[in-house]
Amino acid sequence: MQQRGRFITLEGGEGVGKSTNLAWVAQWLTARGVEVVRTREPGGTPRAEAIRELLLDPSSDEPLDADAELLLVFAARAQHLAQQIRPALERGAWVLCDRFTDATFAYQGGGRGIPAARIAELERFVQRDLQPDLTLLLDMPVASAQRRLQGRLSASGETRDRFERERSAFFDAVRSAYLERASGSPQRMAVIDADAPLETVQARLVACLEARVTPWL
Amino acid sequence: MQQRGRFITLEGGEGVGKSTNLAWVAQWLTARGVEVVRTREPGGTPRAEAIRELLLDPSSDEPLDADAELLLVFAARAQHLAQQIRPALERGAWVLCDRFTDATFAYQGGGRGIPAARIAELERFVQRDLQPDLTLLLDMPVASAQRRLQGRLSASGETRDRFERERSAFFDAVRSAYLERASGSPQRMAVIDADAPLETVQARLVACLEARVTPWL
Repeated sequence: MQQRGRFITLEGGEGVGKSTNLAWVAQWLTARGVEVVRTREPGGTPRAEAIRELLLDPSSDEPLDADAELLLVFAARAQHLAQQIRPALERGAWVLCDRFTDATFAYQGGGRGIPAARIAELERFVQRDLQPDLTLLLDMPVASAQRRLQGRLSASGETRDRFERERSAFFDAVRSAYLERASGSPQRMAVIDADAPLETVQARLVACLEARVTPWL
Repeated sequence: MQQRGRFITLEGGEGVGKSTNLAWVAQWLTARGVEVVRTREPGGTPRAEAIRELLLDPSSDEPLDADAELLLVFAARAQHLAQQIRPALERGAWVLCDRFTDATFAYQGGGRGIPAARIAELERFVQRDLQPDLTLLLDMPVASAQRRLQGRLSASGETRDRFERERSAFFDAVRSAYLERASGSPQRMAVIDADAPLETVQARLVACLEARVTPWL
């Protein structure tokens, strides 16, 4: 029987370098013969990406209710799990996902103030017993991350989405919630100090992967 | 202190005549001096209507997971409650809504087979203690309703949405679930036999409103 694949998530606030480092982790795994499915949340399938657009759209004058936002996040997650993540894991592929439920505890919990117990209720509803096997949390001070985000937006001409427009108190709360999650789940979550030149961050990632992932190969 | 308004919902499958009869009920209430906010689910606010479009869109090749569908329904409901229904009731207006959570038990429960206990979990999550004061269930045999729906679609040139495309076994299950809800909540729900000429249905509605709503005026 085909062994179930591993589920690895990458987490962190805006501007911490998730995209670049996700590609790096994917490359590291692929070089070791693993079939990697790279995906992201919210989104990952066409219908889930359509939900993502509702979540990120800054254009409406109508405020998005915090519960509605939370339910949209989990609707996209249910779709992503059913159509992409679970089938991939079951056929033995590894799934490498840019953000997952830790981001919900950080953004909708820490950022929006929804009690963690309410988020955990929907987590059980949608995921049942599925949890990531490993979560890499890229961490840096909010001021550094905001400078990097601003640099990226200036270079690309992109505009800020509904989350990127939040104030720094929001991002402080997001960061604290992430770090609290990590300290509560040290076996699943590894904190990577990402406030360093890219090569240093990548060396830290490799050290973490060698310690935690190599035994699974 | 302003008295809280009443919350009245109209329920029933496709083709039972909800729109025409909703207008009739609104007119009956307005003639009695009530401020009526007419609305519908899923939808009722711009952001909730955007979620409705995702729910009804038949164009994607990707099947919509039943849990994702259910969470989208409740995301739209949370938004509608926060932005429209609760504020209207609190300022003393009456809310007259085309479909509400009974439709979720009928369509996602009866139609899609999601256990009622799972739906009730999200109902508590989103509504807390809010329930309609009165629910009018327009009921008729599925074959009659399908003939009426087909007539409406032929006359208007509309195409069927994702729910209207379901087969008659789905609508049988929806109807049974509605009737089961009504028999379990006879104080809140009134079943109106809608398989009759419009004037007869309206006379039945008026009789029901006089018995149940006149005491509130």
